[in-house]
Amino acid sequence: MVIVMKPSAPQKDIDELQKRMEDRGLTVHISQGVNYCLLGLVGETNQIDTNQLEAHEHVDRVVRVQHPFKLASRMFHPQPTVVDVGGVKVGGGHTAFMAGPCAVENEEQVMEIAHAIKDHAQILRGGTFKPRTSPYSFQGLEEEGLRLLRKAGDATGMPIVTEVMSPEDVDLVAGYTDMLQIGARNMQNFPLLRRVGRAKTPVLLKRGMSATIEDLLMSAEYIMSEGNIDVILCERGIRTFETYTRNTLDISAVPSLQELTHLPVIVDPSHACGKWTLVAPLARAAVAAGVDGLIIEVHHQPEKAMSDGAQSLKPHKYKALVQELRQISELMKSFVVS
Amino acid sequence: MVIVMKPSAPQKDIDELQKRMEDRGLTVHISQGVNYCLLGLVGETNQIDTNQLEAHEHVDRVVRVQHPFKLASRMFHPQPTVVDVGGVKVGGGHTAFMAGPCAVENEEQVMEIAHAIKDHAQILRGGTFKPRTSPYSFQGLEEEGLRLLRKAGDATGMPIVTEVMSPEDVDLVAGYTDMLQIGARNMQNFPLLRRVGRAKTPVLLKRGMSATIEDLLMSAEYIMSEGNIDVILCERGIRTFETYTRNTLDISAVPSLQELTHLPVIVDPSHACGKWTLVAPLARAAVAAGVDGLIIEVHHQPEKAMSDGAQSLKPHKYKALVQELRQISELMKSFVVS
Amino acid sequence: MVIVMKPSAPQKDIDELQKRMEDRGLTVHISQGVNYCLLGLVGETNQIDTNQLEAHEHVDRVVRVQHPFKLASRMFHPQPTVVDVGGVKVGGGHTAFMAGPCAVENEEQVMEIAHAIKDHAQILRGGTFKPRTSPYSFQGLEEEGLRLLRKAGDATGMPIVTEVMSPEDVDLVAGYTDMLQIGARNMQNFPLLRRVGRAKTPVLLKRGMSATIEDLLMSAEYIMSEGNIDVILCERGIRTFETYTRNTLDISAVPSLQELTHLPVIVDPSHACGKWTLVAPLARAAVAAGVDGLIIEVHHQPEKAMSDGAQSLKPHKYKALVQELRQISELMKSFVVS
Amino acid sequence: MVIVMKPSAPQKDIDELQKRMEDRGLTVHISQGVNYCLLGLVGETNQIDTNQLEAHEHVDRVVRVQHPFKLASRMFHPQPTVVDVGGVKVGGGHTAFMAGPCAVENEEQVMEIAHAIKDHAQILRGGTFKPRTSPYSFQGLEEEGLRLLRKAGDATGMPIVTEVMSPEDVDLVAGYTDMLQIGARNMQNFPLLRRVGRAKTPVLLKRGMSATIEDLLMSAEYIMSEGNIDVILCERGIRTFETYTRNTLDISAVPSLQELTHLPVIVDPSHACGKWTLVAPLARAAVAAGVDGLIIEVHHQPEKAMSDGAQSLKPHKYKALVQELRQISELMKSFVVS
Repeated sequence: MVIVMKPSAPQKDIDELQKRMEDRGLTVHISQGVNYCLLGLVGETNQIDTNQLEAHEHVDRVVRVQHPFKLASRMFHPQPTVVDVGGVKVGGGHTAFMAGPCAVENEEQVMEIAHAIKDHAQILRGGTFKPRTSPYSFQGLEEEGLRLLRKAGDATGMPIVTEVMSPEDVDLVAGYTDMLQIGARNMQNFPLLRRVGRAKTPVLLKRGMSATIEDLLMSAEYIMSEGNIDVILCERGIRTFETYTRNTLDISAVPSLQELTHLPVIVDPSHACGKWTLVAPLARAAVAAGVDGLIIEVHHQPEKAMSDGAQSLKPHKYKALVQELRQISELMKSFVVS
Repeated sequence: MVIVMKPSAPQKDIDELQKRMEDRGLTVHISQGVNYCLLGLVGETNQIDTNQLEAHEHVDRVVRVQHPFKLASRMFHPQPTVVDVGGVKVGGGHTAFMAGPCAVENEEQVMEIAHAIKDHAQILRGGTFKPRTSPYSFQGLEEEGLRLLRKAGDATGMPIVTEVMSPEDVDLVAGYTDMLQIGARNMQNFPLLRRVGRAKTPVLLKRGMSATIEDLLMSAEYIMSEGNIDVILCERGIRTFETYTRNTLDISAVPSLQELTHLPVIVDPSHACGKWTLVAPLARAAVAAGVDGLIIEVHHQPEKAMSDGAQSLKPHKYKALVQELRQISELMKSFVVS
Repeated sequence: MVIVMKPSAPQKDIDELQKRMEDRGLTVHISQGVNYCLLGLVGETNQIDTNQLEAHEHVDRVVRVQHPFKLASRMFHPQPTVVDVGGVKVGGGHTAFMAGPCAVENEEQVMEIAHAIKDHAQILRGGTFKPRTSPYSFQGLEEEGLRLLRKAGDATGMPIVTEVMSPEDVDLVAGYTDMLQIGARNMQNFPLLRRVGRAKTPVLLKRGMSATIEDLLMSAEYIMSEGNIDVILCERGIRTFETYTRNTLDISAVPSLQELTHLPVIVDPSHACGKWTLVAPLARAAVAAGVDGLIIEVHHQPEKAMSDGAQSLKPHKYKALVQELRQISELMKSFVVS
Repeated sequence: MVIVMKPSAPQKDIDELQKRMEDRGLTVHISQGVNYCLLGLVGETNQIDTNQLEAHEHVDRVVRVQHPFKLASRMFHPQPTVVDVGGVKVGGGHTAFMAGPCAVENEEQVMEIAHAIKDHAQILRGGTFKPRTSPYSFQGLEEEGLRLLRKAGDATGMPIVTEVMSPEDVDLVAGYTDMLQIGARNMQNFPLLRRVGRAKTPVLLKRGMSATIEDLLMSAEYIMSEGNIDVILCERGIRTFETYTRNTLDISAVPSLQELTHLPVIVDPSHACGKWTLVAPLARAAVAAGVDGLIIEVHHQPEKAMSDGAQSLKPHKYKALVQELRQISELMKSFVVS
């Protein structure tokens, strides 16, 4: 950590700050430049609140050298983590295909879709508690939806993943599902993160619409710091000025995250673009960028879907796509790493 | 609502869609252009899921004419709402000054600050459940903090406002406080919005970092649709590419919201910029833009603050600022509206 | 085009506006809703200035149905355009690899790099007029650079592409090069666009950092409206809040542009990320997303490069990458379109 | 400047880099942390290309301590610069009101508007070379417009400002005008910046839509480094995800720029919001934030304006607004600085 003093900083304030840092067990290296004086701090700087230092009248700014996440960091854990989701491995060379409807609507619907995709997806997704922008939109079947999704998963031999939106519901949802999804809007819902961190079920953590890569890793750190280290990260598009697509898929986040963390990284091309016509090229791009998995929305009657029909693929298109994705994935195994 | 068909749309699909809309009780006006056919829908379009329509193979896009919020809309409620926060009026010409420490740290601290500002603020703020990016940062005193904040409010005659982060805690927090704050990171935490919507306490709803003005109003709509109509909106900076400030204060949101809604609108300049040196000019700008209130962080020892010291004003600076703000506010009463 | 009147609009203003539009030769379809009255305009609406209409006191907003670009639009030109760059075809199934140093530094450097890549790139790039954020940075060798780049292109049998920054320099640069590059910072430098539109040389048009897809196509329209229809579009990253990468590669822009235009679309992964470690995964992703080409920065001594060394690949890494990219490209030929 | 080495950096590379920096006349302070080794560089680091350093295999990143602009920096020039625009002072306590039509359309129009505002504006604006997104929109009257604007300025005793878009036109435009405007789209048109830097006429430099505050100051530095130090900076809205306003006025940029530079800072509320209804509150906010001037679009018949009518105020509204703005400005003179 480097403290940059303001050009006007009096020597006695620099001395005092140096002493304060040394009193906390840190070693301080002073580097006096032409205009700025720098204090390089060595030791356990993770406990230092940079904001508190920046409140100092004569401190210009504080620069973190080390990333503020530890458990999620690849530096301290170079080997990739492999997460086991109800028997399906994700990460460390295992690429997982997750698919299903945006929302579980009724038994017939989820069964039909589950059977249609079961040979081309390994994990079944389906929303039962739905975060909708409008209070007047369909909000999900809740526990009845969980029961139906479980039934569809069991009938087709697929583990299931669904979103949980409230700490109170974690036990309920964990009782039915093989992986708990934290949605983009809840990426910094810290009580929820802590709560799923105490569950025994793996967690699929989606990146928030305006979350930096570091923010995402800090949210993973929340979960891991409570004991649950089975976290899969999901890039699903960030919010930018572009309006042609619903969000902007940050494809660079895939290799960037892989540099920074040992956790598996997947992509959700459906929410990223919001248009089914773009799902296939984005899914292909994600596989070529090196993802550990994809989560794609599939619906047999998108124009009747109760949620996000516009971005859902029909089953036959999904199947054709997965066959292509597997070929790209296979080809990439022959590529030299980075 | 206008449905724009793709140029290639077959006539039978247009006819079918027209019939489907008419069957839902809507009147359909067809407007055939050179390349595009438009279907203008008249009637109760609020129930229509635009996404479902956009899933239609031959639909290019759907344009909403009317805003999707109703209870929050000024169109159906032209008079400004005045929210009563423990006896302090906000909105409709009543400008409220809210201030206090980012976090309640201990009794001495909160008492000292409350007494220092009591003649220049009408509502005391202080965090007791703190949403922190890092799990290793100070997370707040929780219930003990609530007790101390209440004590400081009572001792100085100020109603209090504090953040609630989890539906489970709403009753607890509501038991101590005069206004429940929903933080930026929870603006789309829908179970929490519903839960405070069922409380009897006014709600201070902060805009999410990547929330549009419409998103913010839809979140207010969630709260209001549960019965709690005492909602105050707070602009606190959005996330942009600029890094000199922590966030970018969207000052235009103030008059924009006032065009769209009858709810009071306040500004939080402290979180918007993240630097105490910028708080005064932003606060002045907010008052001149016509806000119904300001919420400002004050700390007597910012360089020892356990949270957000860098953006906290010292009490004497805060006092001087409020005196100026009152003068601007007073001057503006003589101005012709818009 | 649809004009949405404000709910308060008096009938006589609606009538008057209708008449004004009819006087301009348009047919007007009125659709009176519960709160809003809509005017659907049919005919040559391209000449209508939507901003002028929105200045009308009683107009709420104006919605364009048709895209404002025509020459660049796929609707009126369904077949993909193939651009011939000094004998190398780009677009319509022809994938072109462009590579070279960020800046031409001296004869030895450009010759060395050109020879190193000539079997793996078809077009040689190199900056001679450099747009640098700082006036104190190396600004390029200008005409001497053009001469050296031409020499390197001739020696290795590669056509060349380089940036032109000023209308005054178009003839000079066009005299040396096979394709004129318009950089991101000049995407809306309209006099420059008009000037290259009158040149006989193909144009590589880079997307501006904050340009929407529609803005990019409008800039292509500028060039094409002057007579030069040989325009290649280049996605090179947009500016977002994420700071881990220099820009955010908008990979969705590739299939989005292909839906909207017949012009070839390429990607520049080097400028998009700013880090050589991310170039390979982004390049693979771009090919899998279906690009018509890639432009990649290569330098034999990146740590001595006078510009953008951090994002340059060494020649041996570039070669290995291109071999992989060709395999992905080959595989994709067997894929079903969309 | 601080070089952060990667944790894996071999000692010999650190030694070599240290030597390389010392050979360039810099003093190097080594600070070896637990995981990272830092090299603090003292001396003339402005010449160092950080990108080149970051290309080094073992360098993690390079942190600039000092801002890369010098001539524009307040650090080396604490007194505010006062720019004289045809006799009107801007900056250092002089607040200037600039107004006029977006585009000069004909003699009658510009004369009418100039006379209508002459008692409430000190500088007359009007576009004669117009940067329009579409090649099919009105592009300005060019030299004829310059002549008319000059005539209107002379008739009403106001100096004039108009945009120049091309280096070739600088002499022509400078021959007619009292201040040369560089538009947002040309903020990084470096040949144009250099060219106006060699003119004797003051320059109004508008911030680019995706330009950071530092980018804007670097563009000012370009102009100043050529000898023209009479530069006025203009915040006119940046591009964000919010669509209710055309751009997002970054009001924080005003005090931020005033911390960083001695150059005058003005605001253009018209382009920032794109809606006349929001111009007044934004103008008031800008004055309260401490601007040195405002540039506002005024048109007597906005609904017939050939450009940007929707954001133009009618003269009587403009007059009423300026009277209010002067009162806010006057009041602020009694405020304690910062």
